[in-house]
Amino acid sequence: MSEFNDKYAEYLDGFNTKLNGFCSELDCQPEILCESLKYSLLLGGKRIRPVLMMATGDLLGADRKKLYNYAIALELIHTYSLIHDDLPEMDNDDFRRGKPSNHKVFGVGNAVLAGDGLLNTAYSLLLEQCYGGKECISASKYMCDCAGINGMIAGQSADLLYENSKDADESALEYIYENKTAKLICAALVVPSILCENKYCVELKEFGSALGYLFQLTDDILDVEGSFEKLGKSTGKDEKENKFTCVSLYGLENSKLKADLICDRCYGILDCIKGDVSFLRGMVDNVRTRIN
Amino acid sequence: MSEFNDKYAEYLDGFNTKLNGFCSELDCQPEILCESLKYSLLLGGKRIRPVLMMATGDLLGADRKKLYNYAIALELIHTYSLIHDDLPEMDNDDFRRGKPSNHKVFGVGNAVLAGDGLLNTAYSLLLEQCYGGKECISASKYMCDCAGINGMIAGQSADLLYENSKDADESALEYIYENKTAKLICAALVVPSILCENKYCVELKEFGSALGYLFQLTDDILDVEGSFEKLGKSTGKDEKENKFTCVSLYGLENSKLKADLICDRCYGILDCIKGDVSFLRGMVDNVRTRIN
Repeated sequence: MSEFNDKYAEYLDGFNTKLNGFCSELDCQPEILCESLKYSLLLGGKRIRPVLMMATGDLLGADRKKLYNYAIALELIHTYSLIHDDLPEMDNDDFRRGKPSNHKVFGVGNAVLAGDGLLNTAYSLLLEQCYGGKECISASKYMCDCAGINGMIAGQSADLLYENSKDADESALEYIYENKTAKLICAALVVPSILCENKYCVELKEFGSALGYLFQLTDDILDVEGSFEKLGKSTGKDEKENKFTCVSLYGLENSKLKADLICDRCYGILDCIKGDVSFLRGMVDNVRTRIN
Repeated sequence: MSEFNDKYAEYLDGFNTKLNGFCSELDCQPEILCESLKYSLLLGGKRIRPVLMMATGDLLGADRKKLYNYAIALELIHTYSLIHDDLPEMDNDDFRRGKPSNHKVFGVGNAVLAGDGLLNTAYSLLLEQCYGGKECISASKYMCDCAGINGMIAGQSADLLYENSKDADESALEYIYENKTAKLICAALVVPSILCENKYCVELKEFGSALGYLFQLTDDILDVEGSFEKLGKSTGKDEKENKFTCVSLYGLENSKLKADLICDRCYGILDCIKGDVSFLRGMVDNVRTRIN
């Protein structure tokens, strides 16, 4: 596990250096707009999507320099979604990564604009990549589809819809997990593949879908078992707010059993990929046993 | 003027037909997400940006079929901005085009997602255009920059910032008008130019800037002088909410004088363009004398 941790730290450092560089060149007026974007972008976090993307790129032999731009765009999209999701009329979270959420610092109006601004900036970066050729356009387009109304936004909408709902069943849960969470994880895995002549595209998509499911399962389990200190956000909220999660559907212990099964599915998919997949295997364990 | 009106109706019909076609192919789950997107898109409206874009395309000889996709993307971006701008903690408007605003029908959470969804869908369309070649990428990128953190979002942020502010001066007003309003109007005029080897790019950008300024001036004047029946949205709000507008800065009569001066500037710029600019001239008069 220590080798995994070292590798993770290496990817994380590499990405954070690039992101800091990107942020230092971000310039806009009024100052509060610029500040609010950077506040959420630089709050830290696990950067699981960029790390996955860079590691998959290394596995397939993608051009790192090119890939960093996609990794930054993906983190911008993820961060915008957190800002909007934390809003009072959405998931209503006052804390994120141990610090006050964007709207608690800058107000709801500015937080809406900060999210919009990050999303636009992500697309500015993705459009810029398009000059690189057809595969770059396809990679940008794929990420866009993962984030859009047949991807993450559909998942968030379903998440809102099924709050307090009695109709919610397993297929609804799977729809939410697949779209709200797994689609952006798929983007992290599939974009490098698109840039490398679609190498292992099917397997990586399937793996992303399973890993994303696992990620959301553990997220919901941590809402019950985790602590504010470790998670940096409030816990116990799902039950209090009558949210529809794996825990409300299957119960806590069955959710953990389900998580173990999904781990096996992840390993099985990775077995179909030739090359050194040890880091991706490590990611599965990391997501399963994470405490934040 | 009747020739202008006929031509406007022709552009409007052409665009609405394309937009209806686009909407009928939009499909997403849950249904409320799809409904909320289409609700705001199909509320009607003047469609001034698409009409300007198609007319400019005809002036320069752009490919209409290609241009329609940009026109739809632009209207999607404009519509997302209205949905977010109408939110209670932004401009707090309960009505839009004579109907309840998106968040009054679907709730704030869904309205945030509807805006996000429209923005993503616009970029999906703009990325799709990129396969058409470098000038198509540049056109998409230009629209993105107009909408982003150095464009419309900067203007909205400044608009929020200067509400109730005593520091606001003429340069602040110009910054807001240029970014909040004129940038998307510039996109309508400059995208066709980029697709036609940058023909009259400088002039059209300058014209867009002036016409956008005029549009926001008349918007603020109509907030004082217009009626709910004609405008389809509440009036008298700016004064009540202590908004920073041309009327609060210059007074009503001086704002009208200013509008007349800007009209002259618009005509002057159009005089530098060879070709039949009569429709664009008509647009200037139309914006100056509009009642909605």
